[in-house]
Amino acid sequence: MTLELISSNKSFGGWLKRFSHASTVLSCEMRFSVYLPPQVEDGTKVPVLYWLSGLTCTDENFMQKAGAQQLAAELGLAIVAPDTSPRGEGVADAPDGAYDLGLGAGFYVNATQPPWNTHYQMYDYIVSELPAIIEAHFSINGKVAISGHSMGGHGALMIALRNPDKFVSVSAFSPISHPSNCPWGEKALSAYLGNDKSLWQTYDASVLMQQATAFLPTLVDQGDADEFLPHQLQPEALEQAAKISGYPLELRRQPGYDHSYYFIASFIADHLRFHARHLQ
Amino acid sequence: MTLELISSNKSFGGWLKRFSHASTVLSCEMRFSVYLPPQVEDGTKVPVLYWLSGLTCTDENFMQKAGAQQLAAELGLAIVAPDTSPRGEGVADAPDGAYDLGLGAGFYVNATQPPWNTHYQMYDYIVSELPAIIEAHFSINGKVAISGHSMGGHGALMIALRNPDKFVSVSAFSPISHPSNCPWGEKALSAYLGNDKSLWQTYDASVLMQQATAFLPTLVDQGDADEFLPHQLQPEALEQAAKISGYPLELRRQPGYDHSYYFIASFIADHLRFHARHLQ
Repeated sequence: MTLELISSNKSFGGWLKRFSHASTVLSCEMRFSVYLPPQVEDGTKVPVLYWLSGLTCTDENFMQKAGAQQLAAELGLAIVAPDTSPRGEGVADAPDGAYDLGLGAGFYVNATQPPWNTHYQMYDYIVSELPAIIEAHFSINGKVAISGHSMGGHGALMIALRNPDKFVSVSAFSPISHPSNCPWGEKALSAYLGNDKSLWQTYDASVLMQQATAFLPTLVDQGDADEFLPHQLQPEALEQAAKISGYPLELRRQPGYDHSYYFIASFIADHLRFHARHLQ
Repeated sequence: MTLELISSNKSFGGWLKRFSHASTVLSCEMRFSVYLPPQVEDGTKVPVLYWLSGLTCTDENFMQKAGAQQLAAELGLAIVAPDTSPRGEGVADAPDGAYDLGLGAGFYVNATQPPWNTHYQMYDYIVSELPAIIEAHFSINGKVAISGHSMGGHGALMIALRNPDKFVSVSAFSPISHPSNCPWGEKALSAYLGNDKSLWQTYDASVLMQQATAFLPTLVDQGDADEFLPHQLQPEALEQAAKISGYPLELRRQPGYDHSYYFIASFIADHLRFHARHLQ
């Protein structure tokens, strides 16, 4: 588990670092970004927030555009942003280069279907391999939260719901809330998992939340001017699921906001403070 | 002077808007971004900060990466980010596609030499044409400040020094402080202005500051881990010039910071508060 440093930028008194490493789970070279707040410099062990990005993103988008570092520095919070799919030579991509399947579109599942099953094991990478690397290499105190946007909002909610023991809190911006029942999800899940919809449902936050018996504090923000809201995102499915299981979901509709990083930047401070309260 | 709206994103209660318009001065279609703080919605007239970007940038980089909108919303400050050169079919570019001449590298001067002199009149565009458009179309109170990064830091300082009556304050990150005497500047100024170095000096902040008799509050931040510091940026030339004329320059060296937007983001709040004090 050696890490190769790609770049290092001082940011709000801490450091933003990009690393590459050989991933056993994904059978390829992977990159991630990590923001280390200034508290790390004097040996303090800090809590960590994982951020899962959306379709077409890499590990870089969040760190460049969300404006999270200022408050993360104040709160003493590390942030880890993984890539959104396996990458590199020999890694399958959508035959037509579509943005919503293959590279940049791993959907945080373990693929069972060829050609995807060779590399597309993003669930295991995010849940197991990457956290082990982060714990081994950085000054982390073991308290972990997770968040994400769109496809990554789906990933964050789904992973937290399946692993309530691993996280203290979860949040999402504009998540794909019910992927087994929307065009993006149906396309990706049928390709990666085949036609057995019961397998799809094991990766569907609305299905998992409805069945949940272990609860995590959950904050979701959704812009009401989001072009993907009605067909792809379906926050009402999540609300319905929370009602059934009594899940502690706080879902906020933000008037006038769209699907972009300008929306994320506008409310990321609320999410960081929410997680920081539970990470204390 | 009609503006065409390209996009609109709600951001921290205000709006980030991109427009295109026909530029008479540049003889081409130009784009700019403007952040309108929430105060504008109820008819308040607000001060404006012009932001000039560096080599390779467009009107988008600052708005995506600097994280300025949160505090601009609080302070009630509009921000205008122009493009860094003329664009479009028929606009000359560096024959070898170099990043430091032609498209994305207008250097905020009025070119006198062919083929550049047809379109590369960025000085007049920034000083006269664009402000007239902004005043005509937005809820602006007439108080104006200017800032920028690298080539745009040069632009901001130089334009403020040549037009002290038009601005209340000026700031810069990592400016090309003495362009008539560094590789980037020598390449661009010889191409755009020819070999008469006395003309170059009319666009050189260090020369202008040394000769200045009208003073503006001036804040400059420079990272000491900036790879371009010794050969291209030369803040010591600016300090020297300020000493000679008694110019009110506050130049801060920030330990560990580089030339990236992560540096800008880390200190943009200081610059916005600095300008807001003078814009009141």
